[in-house]
Amino acid sequence: MSNLTGLNHELHVFEALESEVRSYCRSFPTKFQKASGYQLWDTKGSVYIDFFAGAGALNYGHNEPRMKQALIQYLSGNGVAHSLDMATEAKERFLTDFNEIILKPRNMNYKVMFPGPTGTNSVESALKLARKVTGRQTIMSFTNAFHGMTLGALAVTGNKFKRAGAGVPLNHAISMPFDGYMGKDINTLEFIENYVKDSGSGVSLPAAVIVETVQGEGGINVASTAWLQGLEQLCRRYGMLLIVDDVQMGCGRTGSFFSFERSGIQPDIVCMSKSIGGYGLPMAITLMKPELDQWSPGEHNGTFRGNNLAFVTATEALRYWESSQFMEEIAAKADKVKTALDHIIQAYPELDGEHRGIGLMQGIALEQGKAERISQLAFEKGLIMETSGTNSEVIKVMPPLTIDNEGLEAGFQRFEECVNEVMSETRKPVKV
Amino acid sequence: MSNLTGLNHELHVFEALESEVRSYCRSFPTKFQKASGYQLWDTKGSVYIDFFAGAGALNYGHNEPRMKQALIQYLSGNGVAHSLDMATEAKERFLTDFNEIILKPRNMNYKVMFPGPTGTNSVESALKLARKVTGRQTIMSFTNAFHGMTLGALAVTGNKFKRAGAGVPLNHAISMPFDGYMGKDINTLEFIENYVKDSGSGVSLPAAVIVETVQGEGGINVASTAWLQGLEQLCRRYGMLLIVDDVQMGCGRTGSFFSFERSGIQPDIVCMSKSIGGYGLPMAITLMKPELDQWSPGEHNGTFRGNNLAFVTATEALRYWESSQFMEEIAAKADKVKTALDHIIQAYPELDGEHRGIGLMQGIALEQGKAERISQLAFEKGLIMETSGTNSEVIKVMPPLTIDNEGLEAGFQRFEECVNEVMSETRKPVKV
Amino acid sequence: MSNLTGLNHELHVFEALESEVRSYCRSFPTKFQKASGYQLWDTKGSVYIDFFAGAGALNYGHNEPRMKQALIQYLSGNGVAHSLDMATEAKERFLTDFNEIILKPRNMNYKVMFPGPTGTNSVESALKLARKVTGRQTIMSFTNAFHGMTLGALAVTGNKFKRAGAGVPLNHAISMPFDGYMGKDINTLEFIENYVKDSGSGVSLPAAVIVETVQGEGGINVASTAWLQGLEQLCRRYGMLLIVDDVQMGCGRTGSFFSFERSGIQPDIVCMSKSIGGYGLPMAITLMKPELDQWSPGEHNGTFRGNNLAFVTATEALRYWESSQFMEEIAAKADKVKTALDHIIQAYPELDGEHRGIGLMQGIALEQGKAERISQLAFEKGLIMETSGTNSEVIKVMPPLTIDNEGLEAGFQRFEECVNEVMSETRKPVKV
Amino acid sequence: MSNLTGLNHELHVFEALESEVRSYCRSFPTKFQKASGYQLWDTKGSVYIDFFAGAGALNYGHNEPRMKQALIQYLSGNGVAHSLDMATEAKERFLTDFNEIILKPRNMNYKVMFPGPTGTNSVESALKLARKVTGRQTIMSFTNAFHGMTLGALAVTGNKFKRAGAGVPLNHAISMPFDGYMGKDINTLEFIENYVKDSGSGVSLPAAVIVETVQGEGGINVASTAWLQGLEQLCRRYGMLLIVDDVQMGCGRTGSFFSFERSGIQPDIVCMSKSIGGYGLPMAITLMKPELDQWSPGEHNGTFRGNNLAFVTATEALRYWESSQFMEEIAAKADKVKTALDHIIQAYPELDGEHRGIGLMQGIALEQGKAERISQLAFEKGLIMETSGTNSEVIKVMPPLTIDNEGLEAGFQRFEECVNEVMSETRKPVKV
Repeated sequence: MSNLTGLNHELHVFEALESEVRSYCRSFPTKFQKASGYQLWDTKGSVYIDFFAGAGALNYGHNEPRMKQALIQYLSGNGVAHSLDMATEAKERFLTDFNEIILKPRNMNYKVMFPGPTGTNSVESALKLARKVTGRQTIMSFTNAFHGMTLGALAVTGNKFKRAGAGVPLNHAISMPFDGYMGKDINTLEFIENYVKDSGSGVSLPAAVIVETVQGEGGINVASTAWLQGLEQLCRRYGMLLIVDDVQMGCGRTGSFFSFERSGIQPDIVCMSKSIGGYGLPMAITLMKPELDQWSPGEHNGTFRGNNLAFVTATEALRYWESSQFMEEIAAKADKVKTALDHIIQAYPELDGEHRGIGLMQGIALEQGKAERISQLAFEKGLIMETSGTNSEVIKVMPPLTIDNEGLEAGFQRFEECVNEVMSETRKPVKV
Repeated sequence: MSNLTGLNHELHVFEALESEVRSYCRSFPTKFQKASGYQLWDTKGSVYIDFFAGAGALNYGHNEPRMKQALIQYLSGNGVAHSLDMATEAKERFLTDFNEIILKPRNMNYKVMFPGPTGTNSVESALKLARKVTGRQTIMSFTNAFHGMTLGALAVTGNKFKRAGAGVPLNHAISMPFDGYMGKDINTLEFIENYVKDSGSGVSLPAAVIVETVQGEGGINVASTAWLQGLEQLCRRYGMLLIVDDVQMGCGRTGSFFSFERSGIQPDIVCMSKSIGGYGLPMAITLMKPELDQWSPGEHNGTFRGNNLAFVTATEALRYWESSQFMEEIAAKADKVKTALDHIIQAYPELDGEHRGIGLMQGIALEQGKAERISQLAFEKGLIMETSGTNSEVIKVMPPLTIDNEGLEAGFQRFEECVNEVMSETRKPVKV
Repeated sequence: MSNLTGLNHELHVFEALESEVRSYCRSFPTKFQKASGYQLWDTKGSVYIDFFAGAGALNYGHNEPRMKQALIQYLSGNGVAHSLDMATEAKERFLTDFNEIILKPRNMNYKVMFPGPTGTNSVESALKLARKVTGRQTIMSFTNAFHGMTLGALAVTGNKFKRAGAGVPLNHAISMPFDGYMGKDINTLEFIENYVKDSGSGVSLPAAVIVETVQGEGGINVASTAWLQGLEQLCRRYGMLLIVDDVQMGCGRTGSFFSFERSGIQPDIVCMSKSIGGYGLPMAITLMKPELDQWSPGEHNGTFRGNNLAFVTATEALRYWESSQFMEEIAAKADKVKTALDHIIQAYPELDGEHRGIGLMQGIALEQGKAERISQLAFEKGLIMETSGTNSEVIKVMPPLTIDNEGLEAGFQRFEECVNEVMSETRKPVKV
Repeated sequence: MSNLTGLNHELHVFEALESEVRSYCRSFPTKFQKASGYQLWDTKGSVYIDFFAGAGALNYGHNEPRMKQALIQYLSGNGVAHSLDMATEAKERFLTDFNEIILKPRNMNYKVMFPGPTGTNSVESALKLARKVTGRQTIMSFTNAFHGMTLGALAVTGNKFKRAGAGVPLNHAISMPFDGYMGKDINTLEFIENYVKDSGSGVSLPAAVIVETVQGEGGINVASTAWLQGLEQLCRRYGMLLIVDDVQMGCGRTGSFFSFERSGIQPDIVCMSKSIGGYGLPMAITLMKPELDQWSPGEHNGTFRGNNLAFVTATEALRYWESSQFMEEIAAKADKVKTALDHIIQAYPELDGEHRGIGLMQGIALEQGKAERISQLAFEKGLIMETSGTNSEVIKVMPPLTIDNEGLEAGFQRFEECVNEVMSETRKPVKV
């Protein structure tokens, strides 16, 4: 209690001046000052292991040294910082390298659009384009999807609390069951195809389907490769565009640069943000097949499309993808995480935990309340872990991809201590 | 023609890889490299005077030295770059200084919200909040308004081309005539009040009115102080919230920190972005009266709400407002610009130009086509000027607020040369 | 009070079993039994003069003898009563005679559609067609318009109370100022044209404009012929369809069969119902220029499109239009009504009444509350008069077109008694 | 071919003057003149057996003698024909008898509302009320539902062709799988409940569920009693209102007065039209539980709510329900129809027919094209049969409930001849 008062005192500027809408600062109630790699320091000198990675915006860790160097150099040389959508050297370098390092080796042919520098803006641009190109209005999205907070993206987001925040009806979207939503044995695509093809279903032919290959916010729900392939075929059969929202799952989070590489599908449009800037700086891109690039000049614009500092670090981040080494490292760490989580699930059968996820996007689904409690305890022990799922029922392990073994192990040690403590709390008889 | 080929060659990476949606890079077809104050350099070494200032995002000029210094220092010290909405030292400093330097001296009491780091996101948050607090859905906006590109903000934007880009109907908004829209002698507020109070008008009581005190994109239309005061009273009489979108006009563009200071109105909600970050880095804030801060935690969120690099430069930018000196300088430069524009209008009566604007947001309304031609010629002469208005009918003078006399004069000299040239072109007989 | 109890007792079946939505039975609280011409009898034997005419559905009076005769004969001969949209002899006769008696002499070329047998259904069909033919969605309607209660028609209706009843937002419509709405000297068409042509107005090009030439429910607002002609030209200039809703004003109410004949305009689509069936039986038609008849079979259907009893009486009603005599009679009665209303307005200057209307759709606009009081007193004196306007501020004179001089005079005698009484009540000091 | 020319000649008035939207007159291309019981005569003297019954509006047959008598008597006595929603003797009689004969014996307590005299208007009133009472907007409807053609009702209708006719997006509705839609072994209610309760499903809590207990237009899909009961419980658990659209299935079509009696559920709101007027005259009622009767006076109105001729015949029609005899007769005829259909299915295995329906709403689902061909052949043989289902895949047997054995047998004899003929046609080799 005295501790809490202390915290309140420390955060009184935020409590007095910042809106009640703030949220993460309530879960992690301290004032952060410095950060490096997988570690954060607060103003009191405490150090935290980061198993959250800026919700996926810090895949390369905090203040990655090469990017920092490039940034300081660019600033020192008076490089253009803000350029709207004018041509700059920094942007050219990013476009060239993105094409050479990412697209070409994957035999991908996409045009790159720079929407406003946030994920929701990339999604808004993707939906506009899909509607323009097809002349249709409805977008098919999925249960527990998360695509953003502006009205267009919110309409394809599943979370009812977030949706209610719109204050107006959210239309032109149809929410269909994600892979696994109807139980393990039911292929939701059959159900979906019925709705699409049946002339009496009450649902118009969608312009596009927007999907996350792994739903992060929705509870770490992994779509199977078979389902993703089936979805792509469904799109082809009925002339719907396939949009992959890779804002959180892209840039290596699931093991490959694009999260959909494991399934071999070829989306028509891809939304990226979060870690695309490399350093946690605001940036977003929307990729589209060249024949879909039917935009008129300026049809979707925005002031911060030319955040050149982010172009500089984004270009630097592409170095990670020049060989297969980084992917191999992620795979090795993913195995470690899987092993560690399986160990916890087996060691604590009363926990009744269910493993979720792939790559470095993993977690354990728990009885309601427990994941939040673990997150709270973890913070007290110097470990940043967030929950996921509409009822915050999944405790998430989502470190920077660059974390080393030492970091992973230290984090997991604290994690297990928390689980242990939650189990003790649960076992205690309730006093009347 | 050979020149154009050269340009094409230079910009071939953008033409090959970037989407057709790009626009400013078509008006200013060169590759920029460095920038300082009111000047830009391209890769071929040409230098440009900037009369555009990043569409209002660069009020303090390019690479402002103190901000650059603070930024490099923050980066070097491994300051937290990305923090979602967690508490950081950099954010605390911004909040404290914003309160001390901006709000308190103006007797303003606002809570500060950090939406996603773009103007459209600030507008989306403002509309959500107004709808939540009032329980109503309709927002009143104005003819020729510009508020952003995501679906919520686009619904209150007047431009039909941008609106059509939505691909879905844009609802829950009613577009009313801005000050002056019905002719000089008609007070549009009377017309508007009829619609609001008449039980047969077909328009529901709006939750809020969103207004720009000067419409930048819409053609530099200045609302009179009487009209703004009348609008505020109208809002009070009928229980509508008053939202000022100060994304482009705030941070000194019209002469004072907030653009509405000249009218003495007290908006319920204020949207800011563009120059709030100081250095052209993505950042936005939404101010709201404390009693309206009825957000639930996380009801509107986003990955890049914690762009700490922008907090650092934003805090530095507040230094400009510690005394009245900066405002006085802007006023003096505004006078200069007014004089220069009036001179051109009078010296070229065939131009049939109409002066528009206040502060360092001024321009000349011209017969269609001429403003675009002037912009084109200006670029060739090393001067960046943009047009404004839904038919690009206004040539805009919108330099960094920090421009010096030398810069202003050099810019105006080139501007007048362009006007002269356009006049010559017009006078030439058309050959058959 | 004892009287009211008596009434309550008499109407207890309705109070106990019928929904609270009932309205006219509250203004005219007795149980009607028989009716003939311009008279109604209740079960207690009281006789009422009808200055309301079924809100315009009984232009030919109650139980018109020739129609009654035709109806009984048709029934006796087992004529088809209900036929969906199959071909029947009764329908053929109506179509043939409507063409010969109404359309041909007016040089009109329209296809006839039978939507569901109500005005709102005709409006819904008109809006659907306009949207289909133009491929656009927005419909322009007017302040104080009334077009019906189903969601499509309600969206173009001005009354806020009725609109709120929808329970959902009403979209795809824009409510523009009707003739006179902005004051006597302002031509609202100029304002409207600005919105239509200005690319920054925030309003898409409408598919169609729907207008009542005289707004009945909205307060008996008469559009001038110049305004109607201007509106037609506006529609032609911008490719908007012109829909006249003649549900209440058609069938002679304003003096000619179609209410728009006085202005010489040629609507693209015309909605008719109410008196089209002649006898007060449910029927509606939608007229459209042949080139607009782009319906697919069954695209708009309904069970009661083939109300053959109504076809029989509708055909009989057309006899009234075989010569100009009926129009001349209406004109003469309209003069009488005008004279009588002017007399009242002049004789009671404290009434501060304003004459409204043309043809046999006239009334007096009064200070709020008075019109309702007059209606109440009139009922007590055996005269059925309704109010109009969103605040019930107009007392309406709207008898069957077939009323004779005796009926008119008797009605006006009672009307003037009521006015007298209201004046006395107003003069009385309020007791504490 | 010559025959067709003859038909064209006969129907030339309709072809020349009536809109292309007409549909049934294309399937049954003759001009009808007289009708009695289950028979229709055209102007050439051909007689037709009616297995269609006005799409359910003629459950008591054509020109039922007692109703006809009552109608002629009412007309002769100058009974009020049209009364808006004023109190009349005829309406009182209907209300009293409806209460005594229908509601009381079933222990039902409903208030009666008279919306406009069509099914779609009853549905619009039900949806408005549900939205008002709950303060929510979404309505849950079902795949293959049919509820009407005005925008509110169309939004809860499944048929894509009809929906597309709206010309605007149809919102505020969610189409869920009807009983059996996901295959025989899957209980669609489980799927539906997931969507309702899951906070991440993307679907707001609906205000109400609207359901047909048997989907007529949608292909004669019968909801099981278990499913209907489960649906009612689902509504209770989540506070959604239950609306039964009994427009087509009510008034005895499925064997009891209300179609939902077989399941024992107690809907909150019931929509009725079609046969409620008895004689095929336009009439509709909306029943609501008394506590839901939260209408303001006049909140939903309409000109033809007081079609007294329909009240007279509707009252007469209630006589059929004074004892159980009529229900028993329907049951016996339903058995006969079932037997006859089963016989056809078994006798023609190549037909691959599937029996559908209950009561006197039965049919056979066939391979696409065949049902339409049977309907066509039936007409040529003097039998009116319609198809159903969004692809017209079901041939429907839907005679007046009052048909006698002779009529049924004669009809079935012709029906079987058609089936035989279709089978022969199918067997014929296709010529090249």
